[in-house]
Amino acid sequence: MLGYFDYPYSRPEQLTGDYIIATYLVYGTDSSNVFKKIGNFAVGQTIGTWIRIPGVTQEMVENYQGRILSMHQIPSGEETIVVLRLAFPIANFAGNFSMMLTAMMGNDVSTALRTKLIDIELAGNAIGAFRGPSQSIDDLRKLTKAFGRPLVLNMIKPCTGFSPVEGAKLFYEAALGGIDLIKDDELLGNTGYNEVADRVREYTKAAKSAAEHTGKETVYLVNITDSPSKMKDNAKAAIQSGAKGCLVNFVFGGIDSMAEICGEFGDKLFIMAHYAGVGVMNWQKGGIANSVYIGLIPRLAGAHAVMTMFVGENNADDRYDFFKTIQSQRMAIGEIKPVVTAVGGGITPLNLAGIYDDIGKDIILGVGGAVQGHPNGAACGAKATMSAVKAAVEGIPIEQAAKECEHLKAAVDCWG
Amino acid sequence: MLGYFDYPYSRPEQLTGDYIIATYLVYGTDSSNVFKKIGNFAVGQTIGTWIRIPGVTQEMVENYQGRILSMHQIPSGEETIVVLRLAFPIANFAGNFSMMLTAMMGNDVSTALRTKLIDIELAGNAIGAFRGPSQSIDDLRKLTKAFGRPLVLNMIKPCTGFSPVEGAKLFYEAALGGIDLIKDDELLGNTGYNEVADRVREYTKAAKSAAEHTGKETVYLVNITDSPSKMKDNAKAAIQSGAKGCLVNFVFGGIDSMAEICGEFGDKLFIMAHYAGVGVMNWQKGGIANSVYIGLIPRLAGAHAVMTMFVGENNADDRYDFFKTIQSQRMAIGEIKPVVTAVGGGITPLNLAGIYDDIGKDIILGVGGAVQGHPNGAACGAKATMSAVKAAVEGIPIEQAAKECEHLKAAVDCWG
Repeated sequence: MLGYFDYPYSRPEQLTGDYIIATYLVYGTDSSNVFKKIGNFAVGQTIGTWIRIPGVTQEMVENYQGRILSMHQIPSGEETIVVLRLAFPIANFAGNFSMMLTAMMGNDVSTALRTKLIDIELAGNAIGAFRGPSQSIDDLRKLTKAFGRPLVLNMIKPCTGFSPVEGAKLFYEAALGGIDLIKDDELLGNTGYNEVADRVREYTKAAKSAAEHTGKETVYLVNITDSPSKMKDNAKAAIQSGAKGCLVNFVFGGIDSMAEICGEFGDKLFIMAHYAGVGVMNWQKGGIANSVYIGLIPRLAGAHAVMTMFVGENNADDRYDFFKTIQSQRMAIGEIKPVVTAVGGGITPLNLAGIYDDIGKDIILGVGGAVQGHPNGAACGAKATMSAVKAAVEGIPIEQAAKECEHLKAAVDCWG
Repeated sequence: MLGYFDYPYSRPEQLTGDYIIATYLVYGTDSSNVFKKIGNFAVGQTIGTWIRIPGVTQEMVENYQGRILSMHQIPSGEETIVVLRLAFPIANFAGNFSMMLTAMMGNDVSTALRTKLIDIELAGNAIGAFRGPSQSIDDLRKLTKAFGRPLVLNMIKPCTGFSPVEGAKLFYEAALGGIDLIKDDELLGNTGYNEVADRVREYTKAAKSAAEHTGKETVYLVNITDSPSKMKDNAKAAIQSGAKGCLVNFVFGGIDSMAEICGEFGDKLFIMAHYAGVGVMNWQKGGIANSVYIGLIPRLAGAHAVMTMFVGENNADDRYDFFKTIQSQRMAIGEIKPVVTAVGGGITPLNLAGIYDDIGKDIILGVGGAVQGHPNGAACGAKATMSAVKAAVEGIPIEQAAKECEHLKAAVDCWG
């Protein structure tokens, strides 16, 4: 049972060549069957045969079979959990995420384990197979002229159901408050009643009008999500109409489709990946952890920023997940740039100093309700938010900052 | 609370226009909050605003907002389950699955419910937005010259790690037994050591050689899964090299990417969709049911056949799911053709009569281990399988049929 050609257990020290190492939590094994079940899984997800084939040499098996680098049973109250590190030869994936994720999570029924994918790492020259982001936070700062502080992003609400002209009025209001970035809602694509090109044209006009008052032009991220070839058409139409940035829903849109957009248009558009739908993929004892699916994967695929659900201190488990995801987005990986973290969900002028303290200045703060829901309107909500960001960076308590900014004072009075 | 503009509850009789109706199981509500939580969900996934916007007319809201057609609490031992039918205006989706699934399952955190998507239906003229399969079982029968009986599909094993020339030897063996279709494993794409075009060329040669003995040419389904533009390149290369069919992993490859392949190449290739990875999407209290994700969706996207995990009688819950999925694949939906069900997983000459009795002749039976694992080799395994299919259709008990076919007898002796 311990021979490599029975089950491919292999010390990590022995790994040579280019591999992607998946780390899984595995459920449903026990001491009586774990060597065999894990062994079958490693075979089933790569070479996948239970019979010796004439012509399949030992060399081929060694080149293309998965390798179990480590397998450890973890003491657990309920059921046995195994932490498994399995190395996949990158040669099997042909440089695309569809095949990589099929191999990692497309379990053959005959060798299936209940697994949750919690990490991937790049061994040997595997880093070279991924381009990563072509733009960094510095490029975004130049684009938005926002230096030395978190950037602020607003989302147009309503999500859908309005025309570009109506949307431009909403855009104008928030832009008037000095917001750095405004994005479409993830639910609005290239619809018959509100096309990408029209939206870019109207919103850019609104951005220029607002800039006459503020001195800075808010950058618009237009949601181009569509089927792959139409998404490219949308990107081209957006660029022609003056867009500098865009939004892509990559969960249902497809990671490889987004990767192609990043490769083709990443020099002309600042590309933000949106996680909508990731809840389907990430569950307690299965699926793919957020640190992988909205952390590492969009980064490796070349997105420039990723929307990430903000989690406050009241939910320790989700907050662990939140910080793990941000680590995946920004920790050094060879030449692969970090992807900019954009946090959203319940962020207001009142709590953003805490986020700044935790995560630092190189983030995008998504502020929705606190802008549009400000008692004196969106422009005032935006101004209140920008004042709060300034105060956070300067270490000035919000109550003190509110004395200098009537809009922030109104926000504190309203939500404090 | 009961006004439409507070929460969009609407009797189904009042529905006019083109909608896609999603049916969900909803967890985590109770009688004290269910009207409000469901109402917020319906708003959040479509119009998505909590504030009245000047310029957003009542007409726009009515056109683009979701409508709750029904909401019923179901008595349940543990926690309350709600069955919710929510109608989405198709105008919001712009004809692609990425945006449709984002709206249905990309829950906004502020209005999120724990939901499982268990059905979708097309109301008004929504059927017209989907092309469905361009080829039917009749086209496949003409292609394979297999009439009046289930078709038999074999999968090349090993999955990966061999050259086209080595693979062609395996192909030849199974083809010699008269198998109708042979597909790549879902783990083998267009890799550096085994490219799509080379594989098609070698396997087609093998199919023609075998046909000199059998009188029929086995059709090869080559796995073209890749990033969207490369998948099109693979499809073109496959066609140029003589391919008549292909395989697409649509879960991680992307539904819209597969839909584009079906639209562009569906007249030249018989396209089989593979479910690998669907386990990530389908969990007990969340995600998307198989009847939707490997039933309706690939059918609406235009796949010609779908691999579907076979479930035997020993697992009643999964078997319920299996039959629901097959119903979704083949029940009449206007002009949209059925997608051919391909079942796989543990099918042998010994149990296929039962599957034929349950599902009928218009299916593809995927037989892997029972072909390659036959005591006298793959050609004999294939012959045994074809004999068993013939016996099943003619209603002849397998023991009796085994008297006429030594290969079937060997199979019965081995596994009976």
